[in-house]
Amino acid sequence: MRLRNIPGSREVIANSEFVIPEQEMAQMKGRWSEAFGSDRPLRLEIGMGKGQFICQMAALDPRFNYLGIEKYSSVLIRALEKRRLLTDLDNLLFLRMDAEGICDVFAPGEVDKIYLNFSDPWPKDRHAHRRLPGGVFLDRYRRILKEGGTVEFKTDNQDLFSFALEAAAEKGWEILACTRDLHHDAEMNEGNIMTEYEERFSSVGNPICKVILRPGRTPEEVIS
Amino acid sequence: MRLRNIPGSREVIANSEFVIPEQEMAQMKGRWSEAFGSDRPLRLEIGMGKGQFICQMAALDPRFNYLGIEKYSSVLIRALEKRRLLTDLDNLLFLRMDAEGICDVFAPGEVDKIYLNFSDPWPKDRHAHRRLPGGVFLDRYRRILKEGGTVEFKTDNQDLFSFALEAAAEKGWEILACTRDLHHDAEMNEGNIMTEYEERFSSVGNPICKVILRPGRTPEEVIS
Repeated sequence: MRLRNIPGSREVIANSEFVIPEQEMAQMKGRWSEAFGSDRPLRLEIGMGKGQFICQMAALDPRFNYLGIEKYSSVLIRALEKRRLLTDLDNLLFLRMDAEGICDVFAPGEVDKIYLNFSDPWPKDRHAHRRLPGGVFLDRYRRILKEGGTVEFKTDNQDLFSFALEAAAEKGWEILACTRDLHHDAEMNEGNIMTEYEERFSSVGNPICKVILRPGRTPEEVIS
Repeated sequence: MRLRNIPGSREVIANSEFVIPEQEMAQMKGRWSEAFGSDRPLRLEIGMGKGQFICQMAALDPRFNYLGIEKYSSVLIRALEKRRLLTDLDNLLFLRMDAEGICDVFAPGEVDKIYLNFSDPWPKDRHAHRRLPGGVFLDRYRRILKEGGTVEFKTDNQDLFSFALEAAAEKGWEILACTRDLHHDAEMNEGNIMTEYEERFSSVGNPICKVILRPGRTPEEVIS
């Protein structure tokens, strides 16, 4: 995603009732249900971008609490503009934070599902550890996901998708479902909510890849 | 507003149920109530941009039909992303068109109110005829507004605001209300819906100007 500075975005975020302030995030660890006022299962979108996906998810499925995580103020503000239209929703909040810190913010087993949509490919080798569907992050997701919890990853970047599949294999995650052409896979595409990016790029013919992953048992767990 | 090309935006707009296709606009002249399926008074936002204002207006006040007009696909697509979240609304549609053509698209007296928010200042003299709150456009608005209809104009550009007030005086429009600091004018600010731009720039201290205009009688009308 191309980024630009947007004057005033930090101030708008600081004043928003829908964004948990940075200094309060760590205090919510293990008790996110209090922030929402309900103990519905917690679903994260990490690298939420402009928020179309998570806003639609939250509106369509009130059985879950949704938390959108985004590092850049200039992008998060776009999600806030959408959030503001959904006046009746009580199941959608945002965090402006770097995803590296998720284990400080969520307790082990606190998260029901993690969505990664069109994550930054970080194409240079020396940045591979920053890729959200990579091994470094899979280890973090394993810690915060509850038993049976899953990661759903979509991208149109074939290289990043291959990298994610390799990382999943290496880290012992199960692949529950996988396609390299989501929009022509009737079963996996059912109920698919498109991101802003997905909508535009698929409309000009780019195929979308999707995989659903579940942490397998670690070698230690298998031995014990 | 800074503009950039967004791949796929034209295709997304062409496929949207919320955008009246270009080839059908002129046919709707005088019968916009059919496009909405209701004869609620018709309100336009010309130069709608990313749509926060008109999306909130339409959600808050279902007594009116709202039509957002925007020239640039790359901007209109942002409004569509918001529109898509408002699944229950039947009073909000969009047109991708140049505002110069409004008299071909709306019949005399068909429009109840016109909103101009943070219009492009077109600072060069030779572009003055393009300024949406200028005299050339006021003549167009006069033709399509119903009796008692108004234009509401907001901006943080002091020069454009002065230009608009002069144009209104020259063209014989009545000034019903006017402020150079909207957010500190309790009466005029009541119920104010902020645009994306307004929210950000006012949060860093820029004052917002607003004027409400009504076409006065033309010299011909006064004489007759």
